[in-house]
Amino acid sequence: MKITIVGLGLIGGSMAIDLKKRKFASYIIGVDNNILHANIALHNGIVDEILTWEKAISKTDIVILAVPVNVAHKILPKILDALDNQIVTDVCSTKARLAKLTENHPKRGNYVACHPMAGTENSGPWAAQSNLFDGKACILCDVEKTNGTAKKIVTSMYESLNMRIIQMEAESHDVHAAYVSHISHISSFALALTVLEKENNEKNIFDLASGGFDSTVRLAKSNAEMWTPIFMQNHENVLEVLETYIQKLIGFKDVLQRKSTEEMDQLIFDANKIRKILNTQ
Amino acid sequence: MKITIVGLGLIGGSMAIDLKKRKFASYIIGVDNNILHANIALHNGIVDEILTWEKAISKTDIVILAVPVNVAHKILPKILDALDNQIVTDVCSTKARLAKLTENHPKRGNYVACHPMAGTENSGPWAAQSNLFDGKACILCDVEKTNGTAKKIVTSMYESLNMRIIQMEAESHDVHAAYVSHISHISSFALALTVLEKENNEKNIFDLASGGFDSTVRLAKSNAEMWTPIFMQNHENVLEVLETYIQKLIGFKDVLQRKSTEEMDQLIFDANKIRKILNTQ
Repeated sequence: MKITIVGLGLIGGSMAIDLKKRKFASYIIGVDNNILHANIALHNGIVDEILTWEKAISKTDIVILAVPVNVAHKILPKILDALDNQIVTDVCSTKARLAKLTENHPKRGNYVACHPMAGTENSGPWAAQSNLFDGKACILCDVEKTNGTAKKIVTSMYESLNMRIIQMEAESHDVHAAYVSHISHISSFALALTVLEKENNEKNIFDLASGGFDSTVRLAKSNAEMWTPIFMQNHENVLEVLETYIQKLIGFKDVLQRKSTEEMDQLIFDANKIRKILNTQ
Repeated sequence: MKITIVGLGLIGGSMAIDLKKRKFASYIIGVDNNILHANIALHNGIVDEILTWEKAISKTDIVILAVPVNVAHKILPKILDALDNQIVTDVCSTKARLAKLTENHPKRGNYVACHPMAGTENSGPWAAQSNLFDGKACILCDVEKTNGTAKKIVTSMYESLNMRIIQMEAESHDVHAAYVSHISHISSFALALTVLEKENNEKNIFDLASGGFDSTVRLAKSNAEMWTPIFMQNHENVLEVLETYIQKLIGFKDVLQRKSTEEMDQLIFDANKIRKILNTQ
């Protein structure tokens, strides 16, 4: 397969590496408005050629859109306009608006809405890595709107990345992504802001940061270019889960103020239930 | 050195493994009220013998108290009463109350107040592991109250675990531990409670949990036996930083409600500053 990847960041770059390594892709064209990113991807051998997306489409079988969701909103309808028999898929973390934007397009059948749920706190082609997607979930949304061939080919592409394929409606995806992914990021960003405000002496953060702090604050290193559009796009669902999160924290505050060890034990026992769910993975 | 370890959980067990492996300890006596823990530690070869602490003290050079902080409050003064020339050290995560409890004891000089800042979300002797402490910080508190020999020996013990030794006053330790460690745990417990409440379908959590969610929710697997006493002990400092954390989250909520991309970018840029501090580690 000849593949065009639009957006050569962590996700696009990591897909390029493994699609080539695992022989799914025979040739990869990279597209990136950021000349530095494009050059690094080319010189590191992540892609074979750099072109504009307009020029790349006619030369490829699949176009993968790996750009922030606000950029995808602008570019996906244009790519659909330009398609012949090629397939286009995206990797965005919010799906409802993309579903709306494409629902009546004559080429809707060529589009496979996807969210490969993998990543790190790093960004850019220098963060791209092999095996990033192994064992992780890839959500395919609204597959009934995609034609059979496109669905089959894109499914086999994500299978070559060793992903678990799950199907979901776009609206439903955005709700669950808010619950399981987006709130984690806000939790971590706010934690970083808190520690940076309270701990005037940076050396103390450096000295005292243990594995636990590193783990909870890791996502706070994630970039605004990707995450601001996700939060804005999914703001209703994120607001709902954020409100619950704030209420849970107020619950902890209340128990602490009353110094109730029994209630604190109960809160922790209840939170520990997450172990059973995650440890079955 | 002959060493007694009181409390054969994750920390006590992991210390036993590496103190023996790295030849700092020639013989380790284990003490644990939990017969299951004691038996596992003995049969796994983590300790050489199981005794009560009363019987163990006279046979050893150093007593390491690796029990939850509320248990340490009760047992440390008794151990000090029973000491001859032996040294006692503890590994508790809050230090101010232990400092108060011991300040006027005639054997205060034999006590080295320590907090080796390492751990995982797991507990019990089956969670004990080699290399747990490597490269992590060990805080020695109020060292001016410890006699020179005790300080020197305990320092060399933590150095054999490859820890970075840092000195701090007990009161100050508790403030900084709240900022950098304790709030992370509350953040994670509350996140688990939120996701468990919002996501009725456990399969969705299982399916959609990515590395990011795993990372932020990992500490929510930590046990109440250890953490309730820490939060209760350090409740003033924890309440202070928790209040700031809630305010930061309300800030995110406000920006989301107003859909201000510029302000959201700024919040994320500010949070990203944590990267510079942690990546210098």
